[in-house]
Formats: sequence, structure tokens, C-alpha cells
Amino acid sequence: MGMFLTKGVVYKPAAKVDLGPHSDEIYRRAYVKAPRMAGLLVKIFAMFLESRIFGPILLYFLKRNNLIHKLVSYADLEEDPVFVPLQPYEDVKEQDVISIESNLSPSSQVQEAIDCLNPSKTISSNINSSFRRWTILDYSRAYTSGKINPRMVAERFIAAVQQSSEPSLDMSFFISYNVEDILRQANESTLRYETGDQLSALDGVLVAIKDEIDCLPYKTTGGTKWLQNVRSCEDDACCVKRLRLCGAILVGKTNMHELGAGTSGINPHYGATRNPYNRDKISGGSSSGSAAVVAAGLCPVALGVDGGGSVRMPAALCGVIGLKPTFGRVSPSGVLPLNWTVGMVGVLAGTIEDALIVYTAISGELPTADNSTKHYNIHLPILKSPNYISGVRLARYGEWFNDCSKDVGDCCSRAVEKLQHHYGWEVVDVNVPEIEVMRLAHYVTIGSECSNAIACYVEKLGTKEFGWDAKVALSVYQSFSSREYLNAQKIRNRQMQLHKRIFDEADVIVTPTTGVTAYTIYNDALKTGELDYVNGAALVRFSISGNFLGLPAVTVPVGYDKNGLPIGLQFIGKPWSEATLIQIAYAMQALCISECRQPEVFYDLLKEED
Amino acid sequence: MGMFLTKGVVYKPAAKVDLGPHSDEIYRRAYVKAPRMAGLLVKIFAMFLESRIFGPILLYFLKRNNLIHKLVSYADLEEDPVFVPLQPYEDVKEQDVISIESNLSPSSQVQEAIDCLNPSKTISSNINSSFRRWTILDYSRAYTSGKINPRMVAERFIAAVQQSSEPSLDMSFFISYNVEDILRQANESTLRYETGDQLSALDGVLVAIKDEIDCLPYKTTGGTKWLQNVRSCEDDACCVKRLRLCGAILVGKTNMHELGAGTSGINPHYGATRNPYNRDKISGGSSSGSAAVVAAGLCPVALGVDGGGSVRMPAALCGVIGLKPTFGRVSPSGVLPLNWTVGMVGVLAGTIEDALIVYTAISGELPTADNSTKHYNIHLPILKSPNYISGVRLARYGEWFNDCSKDVGDCCSRAVEKLQHHYGWEVVDVNVPEIEVMRLAHYVTIGSECSNAIACYVEKLGTKEFGWDAKVALSVYQSFSSREYLNAQKIRNRQMQLHKRIFDEADVIVTPTTGVTAYTIYNDALKTGELDYVNGAALVRFSISGNFLGLPAVTVPVGYDKNGLPIGLQFIGKPWSEATLIQIAYAMQALCISECRQPEVFYDLLKEED
Repeated sequence: MGMFLTKGVVYKPAAKVDLGPHSDEIYRRAYVKAPRMAGLLVKIFAMFLESRIFGPILLYFLKRNNLIHKLVSYADLEEDPVFVPLQPYEDVKEQDVISIESNLSPSSQVQEAIDCLNPSKTISSNINSSFRRWTILDYSRAYTSGKINPRMVAERFIAAVQQSSEPSLDMSFFISYNVEDILRQANESTLRYETGDQLSALDGVLVAIKDEIDCLPYKTTGGTKWLQNVRSCEDDACCVKRLRLCGAILVGKTNMHELGAGTSGINPHYGATRNPYNRDKISGGSSSGSAAVVAAGLCPVALGVDGGGSVRMPAALCGVIGLKPTFGRVSPSGVLPLNWTVGMVGVLAGTIEDALIVYTAISGELPTADNSTKHYNIHLPILKSPNYISGVRLARYGEWFNDCSKDVGDCCSRAVEKLQHHYGWEVVDVNVPEIEVMRLAHYVTIGSECSNAIACYVEKLGTKEFGWDAKVALSVYQSFSSREYLNAQKIRNRQMQLHKRIFDEADVIVTPTTGVTAYTIYNDALKTGELDYVNGAALVRFSISGNFLGLPAVTVPVGYDKNGLPIGLQFIGKPWSEATLIQIAYAMQALCISECRQPEVFYDLLKEED
Repeated sequence: MGMFLTKGVVYKPAAKVDLGPHSDEIYRRAYVKAPRMAGLLVKIFAMFLESRIFGPILLYFLKRNNLIHKLVSYADLEEDPVFVPLQPYEDVKEQDVISIESNLSPSSQVQEAIDCLNPSKTISSNINSSFRRWTILDYSRAYTSGKINPRMVAERFIAAVQQSSEPSLDMSFFISYNVEDILRQANESTLRYETGDQLSALDGVLVAIKDEIDCLPYKTTGGTKWLQNVRSCEDDACCVKRLRLCGAILVGKTNMHELGAGTSGINPHYGATRNPYNRDKISGGSSSGSAAVVAAGLCPVALGVDGGGSVRMPAALCGVIGLKPTFGRVSPSGVLPLNWTVGMVGVLAGTIEDALIVYTAISGELPTADNSTKHYNIHLPILKSPNYISGVRLARYGEWFNDCSKDVGDCCSRAVEKLQHHYGWEVVDVNVPEIEVMRLAHYVTIGSECSNAIACYVEKLGTKEFGWDAKVALSVYQSFSSREYLNAQKIRNRQMQLHKRIFDEADVIVTPTTGVTAYTIYNDALKTGELDYVNGAALVRFSISGNFLGLPAVTVPVGYDKNGLPIGLQFIGKPWSEATLIQIAYAMQALCISECRQPEVFYDLLKEED
């Protein structure tokens, strides 16, 4: 970083600051050069400051000259801001769950999740299914049986990714993947299976990671051309470490909307991630690559980050499961802090069972040497049969639910009717007030946090390496004032109170996941990105409370529009009630999975050798 | 409020919103009018947005047209923002304290505090003292003995305030006081003493309230000319309710710096509060009137609010005790939310014993009918003798300690030496890094919060009724971006970590309270206020960690400068360690009180009848 003119101060981490009497920390006297003013001078000064033209210029210099820019505005700090949303952990009451502590080893946690599954339900046993993706258990059993080994799967994966990148497909799934590193992991896993030392059911299972999450040996780009040059990636993120401890093969960094600042997944630097169901269509974003690789069969599961629907929207558009846990459930350590207070690592998976396994694997902090890690209970739903969960109350706000395209509305309504019909669940009609207010307040929040996260870099580098749509997003983000941010936090508090009352009446809120299905990628957008706030608002319409209020939420594929594009139904739960959400999603999946269609672009990595 | 053009939405309180299916809450569809743009159009749009001249104008209209201004920026919301500083309650280990729960009745809490005092230490018993102010116990005993009654004291008080307001003195102590209301309370108290039904030692004791705290029958101005017209005051603040339940006579609303946005206490609307030790000098601010009335003997105690030293600075400049409790100790309910995350109700008092009594009385929430009030322990220091507390470690950062005028530095150093000499306490030399950074980050924080608190009013009313210096302050406050605010919160987190380490080595941090003593009020400042950032920074230099990190702090008068103006020494404690702080202040007071001098403007309300 020495190559850049450092305008903002770079602070050393607090833990490394010497507080002793012989510290080399220098006492900085107040640098206040302003003359005393009173009377007429104050009046003139105030009038200048309040002028629309001169005010901002004068303020710029005042703040700069008084070192606010250097010491505060553009300072480079490792510490998180002192605030986190008030969603303190609560051991909620849930039916048919087992409770484990989050300080087991990741592989033990995986085993606990596996024990909750119905052992007879494997892909081959489901004769009604015209199409199903291979699951974690399919891989694990195939490896254990010796029919195939991780090395062979890894080779097929690499060939498939290479094929998907050819101009004829141009899927743009990955920002980076390292053949050597993948094969090394696959060889190690293969060896473990050969000696019977596999680490968990995830051993040898391919997992893709959104390029917003640190994962060695890759640099983390956040979908940009520049972040990897100014920010070093020196360790795996906590969630990645946990997967590695389970033996998962980390296959590379998936494509994403630049800085997560959009929902289409059209990235001008790394290509527009195309939808496996129709490669002329978007995959959705910002975790575009993670959704698309799962849809295309390249990995049974992938990690994304969901700051404004960024896991659930692409999952819905690509016809897979997307699970966003409660804020705080997964460690933010090693995840780009683009949106601390709304973002959360989430799981994209072909089935809800696989989402459960990976959710369980990544939940919790890693144990520390001094045993000081906070831990709390994780509830695991017992998924033996979709029939057993009874008396579920689904809150629905009709006007909101139906604020979507006709295909989406019809399909989602049918799905809800199935739940009522098959399980006797109840729909509670409610009003969720001020949804649009919440969307705007969330936009102010996520924009402010993103702009803050990169302010010290932007000050040094400018925006010349930004994509055009990211430039526009950043201009808007930077325009938010602190008083707007604070009002957004008032709206947040207010909505938390309102939602608490809704959850007194219902177990989950049910909505479509997106207002529209995947729309067309036009050629004019490929180099500049595109600004399509109307489609953007329709995509994000149902996502916001999950992020802004930290609520857990899951999307389940429930059908297709008239063009064969996937449609997702979303369940939003009360804080810390992932187990109930997963049970509900499991019940929904059971009613829809037989209609699942194979995407246009699909790779079968477990196929029998010819 | 109907008379003003409502630009921002006024939200009804969350608890009153109907969430049922027949709610009159209207579903607001996303109001997104932007056309899709890609290619060259995006480039042009981005370039306009990034332009210094057109960018802000374009952004203004974008935000306005997309309803961000109406629904978020200028919205009027009752709810607090979702964040509070992370200073969770901790039952710290302290020596020689008793522990009470904060859900006793206020009068029982007062009695517990009284029981901690040395019963023989009354003013008359202190023969060494050349001058001492009457204390709560002096009043309470005089009333109980029947020598004088609250009615007579109230009458003397009213006469004294009237005299102090005459042009020859022009002290500007109060913004409002209501003779009828004072006499009504005094009569009721007198009656209680006559029937032996006094409520507590505070019964009949005069207490003044800063005009930032709701107290019926007064409107709350916050030192402005307009706030009382747009914000109704319908109840006492929680801390005021608690005092009322103890029988205290609430004598009116003290003068303050407009919006708390300055440190001089020069208010262009209600006059410059003058220092009782020298009426040509400032009293300091922003709780200027509260400090001055205690100094002048009008009340033994008063409440202030300390968002950036606003209790401690005027206390030091006026030669009285100023105690700012840990963030969260006193309920913010009914206090103007000008600075939620840094502000705290504080106590101004003639002696540390009186500060303890009132601190104890106002600590904690009022019990609710459903018994849901959070409560926690309050430690009360046993103040029987200043000698018993031993082994105190005082952290001192020499360069910071000495960054003050020579008189202040010499006097404060002597006071610390006395502590070492008399009690054998230890001074630990430390480095407190980045104090100036913290001052700026705090400024960004308090400015943002103040500007947010009044944004919905300013949007309607403009600033025409603001004083000139408040206009300037508001212009700067409004200029802070959300990313600056967030960086300030990172600095806050960082400083909390640094201070935690300092408190591993020491019980308190010792500093002068202010870098300078009370400076001169010039005539040119009376109508416009003044901008004197150099003196302002010197005043506030030692105050910030108390607010920004939520630490408790106390100032004790320890001497006078060569012009006879008071000097205060400050002790800053670890979170929730008020008892230790009060013990230390008590020990300091014992060494200095004999040198206490009578102010130029002083009223003896307990004097024997002639």
C-alpha cells in the first residue's frame, strides 16, 4: 500500500498499540486554527456555510484543515464500528429439534446434522423424480463405496468449468479457481477415503465460495478489479476454515455483482453470470456464481453473502435453495465488511437437507486456545418425514404477496395452497406496514456501510477501476448523510418492533422470493453493467426484512414461469428459528421436488463411468 | 404541527400500528421511476454524478424523487435508532461498597445513600472550612428541626433568582421558572414535614433541571427559540419523576448552550450564563445554568446532561462537583435525544455526598406495572472516612495532563501529589493514544446525532430562528456523511479496547477537567454567540472519553487560578464503577474543601432569620 499517497491515516490494530509510559505513540495537540469570531463575522460565516454553492466547498476545507478527513473520514481501521444490531441470541422454543452447542468441532456438527436426516431418502430412492441434483450424501456414499473418488470428481469439475467458460457458453461462474489447489485437496481427500479416515460427510464434497469471503490461496476481489491489490487475504474466513476442517474441497471463488452493489450479477470485469436454465438470462445477484454453480450441478453447495437478498434472489432465479441465517449466526470474520449490520453468510444448495448440513457446519465461531469463544445453541430440525410438523401458521400480506408478475404470483399462491391442503397449515392474513420505507432505509444503510468499507481505498485510488454501474452506485452511497443513516436505524428499530408483533401471531412470513423471474441480459450491459432500478426493486421486494432486521429466511424452488424460468417461495422466520424454517422448507420441497426440471446447462459429476 | 408544511413523513409509534388484515396501513408500491440505462448512457450518468458541481444537485433530486427524503431523511420517528454503544452492564468488583438493586423506590434508594454518609459530617461541624455550601442534609435537618421550612426557602429562592436577573447582575441562570408551581411544591413539602410524612432526605430540597430534560409544567426548549413550539412536553423525564417521588422541589429549567452545541454557555436567546465567581466570565456549558445555580447557592444540586463534557466542564469552571454516570445508568426517557449514544444525565452538586444522593435517586428505570423493568445493581460507596480507601492506582498521561494552562496544570499536579502523599496512592504513567482522533470522532458522532434529532424540524422550519453560532454548528453537523459516522464508530470500538487495557493497570485515569479556566464574555458575543474553537477545544480536551466510551467521570474542585477562578480535577473510571469514583472524589474533596472560596454572586438560603 506504500505506493499510494496515503491521505487517511492507517491505524495499527488496537491490540498492538503500546500503552506504557515509553510508548512511541505521539501526543497530538488539538490542531485548531480557526480564529475566534463573534458578531458580524459569525453572521457572514454562517451565511456562507448555509449557501448551497459555497457551503459544501467551505465545509470541505474546514473538515480537511481540521484533520477530520485525515484522522476520521478516510482513516483505515481494522476495528468494526461499535454498533451491531440488537438481535441478541435467544434459545427459541421449536418443535422436533435437537439442540447442540456451537462449540463442537465442525465435523461433529456435520454428523449431528446428518443424523437428523431420513437415511432412506437418497436420490436413487426417489423414483417419482424426473430430475434431481446429486446431494452431499450422494457424494459421500459414492466415495465411501469406492465407486468414484474425489480426485475423479475434481477432474470432471475442472473439465466442466473449462467447458462452461468457452465462448459458446460463456457462463462466467468463477472469478478464480486454481486447478492445482483443487487437485491437491482432492488427492488428500481421496487418500482419506482410501484409509477410512474421512473427516465428515463433507469430505471430498466440492464447495464454491463467493468472492466476498476470504479463502486461500485466492485473493478476494469482491467482484472488483482493484480490491485484491490493496487488501491482502492472509487467512481463510472462519466459515471456510470450518468447511476445510470437514474435508470439503474448496473449488474457487464465484463471480458476483461488483461490490455486491447490484442484483443482476452482470459484472463488467468478470462477465455476466448466466442462468443455467437459460443462458440469455441473468442469474441474479449478488451471489450470482454461487447460485449458478449449484444449479448447474458443479457443486452440491456453495457459500454466498446475503446483504440485501444476495443469496436468496439468485437462488430463486436459478431454481435452488438459498438459506440466510439469523444475523450473528455465522462469524463475519474473513468476510469483506461491505455491509456488516445487514450482511450474513448464506448457503446455496440443491436440497434443503444439504443446506442444513452446510449451515450446521459453518455456524459458530471456531474454538480458541483460551476457550473464550462465545457459543450458543444450534437447533437442528429432525427431517425424517415432511408430515410431522403441524400447526404451522403462515403470515401473508396479500397486497405485498401479489406485488409480482402473474406467473410468480400464481405459482407461489399454488405452493401456499399445497401447504394448507397437504399439511393443514394455517394462513394468517396480516399487514406488514412500511415495506417500501424499509427498502429505502435498508438502501441507505447498506450503501453507507459499503461506502464506508471502501472509503479509505477510494480516497487513494479514485474510481477509475470501477465498473460504470458501480461508479453510479458509489456516488449515491457516498451521498448519504449521517443523519439519514441514523433515521434509517430508527426505522429499523421500529420495524423490529412491528415484526416482533407479527411473529406473535405466526411462525413465519411467506412471500414470493422475487417479484420477477430471471430477465434478459442485453449486450449493451456487458461492458458497463446496467442500471435497471425497476427490475432491481422487483427482485429485491421481498428480501429486505431478512437483512435489515437480521431475520433468518429461506427460498425454496416451487415451479417455473411460462418460459421455464425458476420461481422461488420465501419463508421468513423469527430470530434464531432456522430449525423451524428448515422444517417448513423441507415440507415445501417434498411437495415440489418431483416437478424439478434439469437446466439447459448441467453437469453430472457423479455419472457412472461409460 | 399542522401549521407547517410536512415534507418528511410523520410516523405513528410502532406500538399503535395495526398489523391485522383490516389495517388502514396502505401498501406502498416501490416508487421507482428511473429508466433502464446501459452502455453510453450509464457512462454519461456516472460522469455527471461524479462531477463536483452537478453531482450533488443530481443526487439531491434523485433522492427526493425516489422518496428517500420524504420517507427516510426527514421522517419524524419516535423510535430510537437500533444501535446503542456496547457497554453492557457488569457488576464490577469494588471495595467498601454496599450493593442495592435499582428497582427500589427512589426514596428508599436515597435512604440507602444517606446511610452511607458519615453522620457527623455536617457543615457546622466542619470548623476548618472558611466557606461551604449548604448540603442536602443541611436542608433536610433544618426542615426536620423546624428551624425553617421549604416554603420559606422557596420564597428566598424566588427572590434570589429575581435579583440575579436584574440588569446589574444579569446572571441568566434560568430559561423558565414558575413561581406558582414552586410555591405549590414547597407548600406540599412543608405540610409533609409538619405531619412528619416527609418522603426522603430530598423532600423540600430545591433541584434545578437543565432545559434539555422534560419537567412539567415547563416546555423543553433545548436552549432554542423554536423547539418548544414543535415538540410537546407531556410528562416528566424518568429522572425527574424519580426526584419528584423523593419530594424534591423542581424549581425550573436552567439555561444552556443552544442545542448543547457549544461549551461557553453563551445563549443568544436566553442570555449568557455568568460565572458566580466572576460575572464577566463564562460559566461553561452546555449545562451552564445548572452549574451556576449550584455554585451560587440557589440549589444544592441540579441535573445536567453531559454529551461532550457538558456537566463536567461547567462544574469545573464554576467550582462545583460534576458527576457523569456510565452510559445507560440513568434512563434517557424524557431527555432530548440530541446525542443518544454519548449523552447522559449528570449531577451538579456542592459536595460529592450530595452528588451521591442524587445519583442514587435518579439511577434506574421506574418500576412498571408488569414488572418488566430491567434492573441491575447499584454500588453505593461507604463514605465514613476519606482514609479507608487504599491502594488506588491513578493512570496519568503526562503530555495530555499538562496540555493546559500553567495555573490549571500546577494546581492539578499539586492535587495529585496530595493524593499520593496523604493516602499513599500510586500514579501509573500511561500513554492514552489518539486523544485528538477521539475528539474528532466524537465531534462527528455528536454532530450527526444532533443533526439527526432535529432534521425533521429543520426541514420544516429552516434555521431562521437559530442563533448564529448554532447555525454554523448545524451546517457542520449536517455535512457529516454516513461513512464518516461509521468510521467514527470504528474509532470508538478501538478506543474502548485501548481503554479496557488501561483499566487493567489502573483504577481511574486522572486529568484536569478543562484545559483553561473560565474565559471572558465579550459583548460582541452576546447577540450572535461566538465561535472560539481554540478555547472550545481546550475546554473539552479531557472530557471526550467519558462520553464517547460511556465511561463514568467526576470533576472535583481543587483550587483557583491567579484570578480566583475555579479549577477542577477529573477522575475517569471504568464502566459501572461510579462507587469507586465517588470514593476517590470524596478523598480528594477532603483535602481541598477547606480552601473553598465563596463566589462573588452567592445566596444563603438557609441563613438564620435576623
